Amino acid sequence: MKNRIARRMSVISPSLTLAISAKAKAMKQAGEDVVSFGVGEPDFNTPENIIAAAKKALDEGQTKYTPSSGLLSLRKAICEKFKKDNGLDYEPSQIIVSNGAKHSIFNACYAVLDEGDEVIIPQPYWLTYPEVVKVCGGVPVYLNCKKENKYKFTAEELKAVITPKTKMLIFNSPSNPTGAVYDETEVREIAKVCEEAGIFVLADEIYEKLCYNGVKPFSIAKCSEKMKDLTITVNGVSKTYAMTGWRIGYLAAPADIAKAIDSFQSHATSNASSISQYATLEALRSPEEDVQAMVQVFDGRRTKLLKLISQIDGVQAIEPDGAFYVMLVIGGLYGKSYKGKRIENSVDFADALLEGEKVATVPGVSFGADDCVRLSYALGEAEMEEGLKRIARFVAEMQ
Amino acid sequence: MKNRIARRMSVISPSLTLAISAKAKAMKQAGEDVVSFGVGEPDFNTPENIIAAAKKALDEGQTKYTPSSGLLSLRKAICEKFKKDNGLDYEPSQIIVSNGAKHSIFNACYAVLDEGDEVIIPQPYWLTYPEVVKVCGGVPVYLNCKKENKYKFTAEELKAVITPKTKMLIFNSPSNPTGAVYDETEVREIAKVCEEAGIFVLADEIYEKLCYNGVKPFSIAKCSEKMKDLTITVNGVSKTYAMTGWRIGYLAAPADIAKAIDSFQSHATSNASSISQYATLEALRSPEEDVQAMVQVFDGRRTKLLKLISQIDGVQAIEPDGAFYVMLVIGGLYGKSYKGKRIENSVDFADALLEGEKVATVPGVSFGADDCVRLSYALGEAEMEEGLKRIARFVAEMQ
Repeated sequence: MKNRIARRMSVISPSLTLAISAKAKAMKQAGEDVVSFGVGEPDFNTPENIIAAAKKALDEGQTKYTPSSGLLSLRKAICEKFKKDNGLDYEPSQIIVSNGAKHSIFNACYAVLDEGDEVIIPQPYWLTYPEVVKVCGGVPVYLNCKKENKYKFTAEELKAVITPKTKMLIFNSPSNPTGAVYDETEVREIAKVCEEAGIFVLADEIYEKLCYNGVKPFSIAKCSEKMKDLTITVNGVSKTYAMTGWRIGYLAAPADIAKAIDSFQSHATSNASSISQYATLEALRSPEEDVQAMVQVFDGRRTKLLKLISQIDGVQAIEPDGAFYVMLVIGGLYGKSYKGKRIENSVDFADALLEGEKVATVPGVSFGADDCVRLSYALGEAEMEEGLKRIARFVAEMQ
Repeated sequence: MKNRIARRMSVISPSLTLAISAKAKAMKQAGEDVVSFGVGEPDFNTPENIIAAAKKALDEGQTKYTPSSGLLSLRKAICEKFKKDNGLDYEPSQIIVSNGAKHSIFNACYAVLDEGDEVIIPQPYWLTYPEVVKVCGGVPVYLNCKKENKYKFTAEELKAVITPKTKMLIFNSPSNPTGAVYDETEVREIAKVCEEAGIFVLADEIYEKLCYNGVKPFSIAKCSEKMKDLTITVNGVSKTYAMTGWRIGYLAAPADIAKAIDSFQSHATSNASSISQYATLEALRSPEEDVQAMVQVFDGRRTKLLKLISQIDGVQAIEPDGAFYVMLVIGGLYGKSYKGKRIENSVDFADALLEGEKVATVPGVSFGADDCVRLSYALGEAEMEEGLKRIARFVAEMQ
């Protein structure tokens, strides 16, 4: 008997946190008063001007195939965005629009990685990176990012993990889950190491607009022409314009790589939704003030969340400069018990917290950081306060 | 220096027909009066009830992530569709909704094929099949389908190409490009061969509702429990509901395979557009009469097209029983010249026809049938008549 499932599928890890998020969902659906810090999407609705653009596209019958890499008008608008926001010049032929930034990341890995190629993934990491690398035949090499340095790795630390097999670095700034943002100086040092080693950088800049404390992100492709020729920059509209469900991500790549991805996407999925593409065209034209207003709301929540966490004994937060997550360090509590159940790791903690106080979090083990749980602050302030009150009570009850 | 592009990418064939379709497009955009038989999508607009459902979803803020395999309500509706139309019982967990049927086909191949697995592809074939098989590490094995049998292969012919390395058959009925539809007796004979050899069937049933001459398609998964356990059935709303741009395809698979695809899709792309999913929910509830009305329009065009072709000396059509394409056999004209240019193959023919008479067709070489060009009848009757008049004139001028 032949094997029914391709061998490559066996490398995908079953989700350690699926059971717990399913439980939270079931509790919510059963009408229980769950406070969820788990979600990775803005709680805002998609702005009205974008909804209106989608309806206009529907009325105009824009419901047919588009070029598989995306509407030319959209790819032109994305070039303008890269020019304006990142100081980067691209041709529309170097832009590929896909079914979400996750899809862009998969396409980039599939087009570049050969069996056995090493990919450096800073840790804590977004949980999809290692899975995509593995399913494309690559080998994840984790680069530990220290809390003391706000979860940022240094150029020296990067250098130490490069081997002759290294093909790519995944560079996610601002970072999910840590909120780490690298400034221009740091980015330039990292770029120098990558250029010298001749390794690609997959720059995931999906959270670029969500920065706080005056920290400015900097695109690694901007460091030099040589670096640009080694960089695939991924971005999208999900996080900035509250458009997670629309599924539009995009990438900018050197011409040879863009051509390979275009050809692959034309056979593997073809174009992303035409309606979503028209909506994205409008999103990219949105006034910067709308985005700034959203950033201010998030910043207010972030500040509040950090303050509330600082009032709880036994846990700490590493202050994030970007995105909308805080890593709550709970490792100091391991070994204690809650209602007779010993808490030994992040799954134990998250599970007991959900059971005991109806608060949903994501166990840090998903991100390669088992001494934490991740709190998203993409939820209302009142709900956030209530959630933190419960966490404080939960921690106080541990013994 | 490392290779920049993954080796797997080199197996994707550059499109032989890209230049010609680009030329047709450029001519149209320049305002030239091109008649296009090239398109693979209905010329109808998406029906009003479906547009309305999408707008309602937008108004209700259904713009967030859905489960990566699709909304539960949609997967339930798809189960009902399989029950009603195909007599097949599936659980929602066996259904994966993707970014178009092409994406479903890619997912199925990626989840099942190991390096070197042979996949039988009946020829003429939809041009994406060999490319997807190759990029997933499989080896296409072509099964020649005879014109004398309306481009259908027999169980005996299938048996003859099976080897110990055969992992899968791609079975597309009704077929693009030939319009071949296999009846229940033929399907059961083919199923018997597949069961005996223990090979998977990827059943692409995207054109199932578009059948003529009273021919009824039959789902191969329906043949037996054993066959169902070896079948991945792909379908979608693009062709039946004029929803090509919305990008919703789906598949039904045995539980183990569905689970692997679900896990893979959750990391590689996540869910298809939430708005398109809500629209699809409405499409699947559309009155059958609307679909029947469309089928009648297509049938009228088909009959007319066949009649017009029969009046042209030197070319033939193989009568299609399904889909919306006709293979126009032009091989008998090879060796002749048009305006001094010798016509030796389907690309020469299509190119000269476009240049000389502004008629766009797809060269058969794309489908592994270099003695044909494919005509789509997804265009208005008046345009079709004009196009055929030009083709007749073109052929008459050849010498």
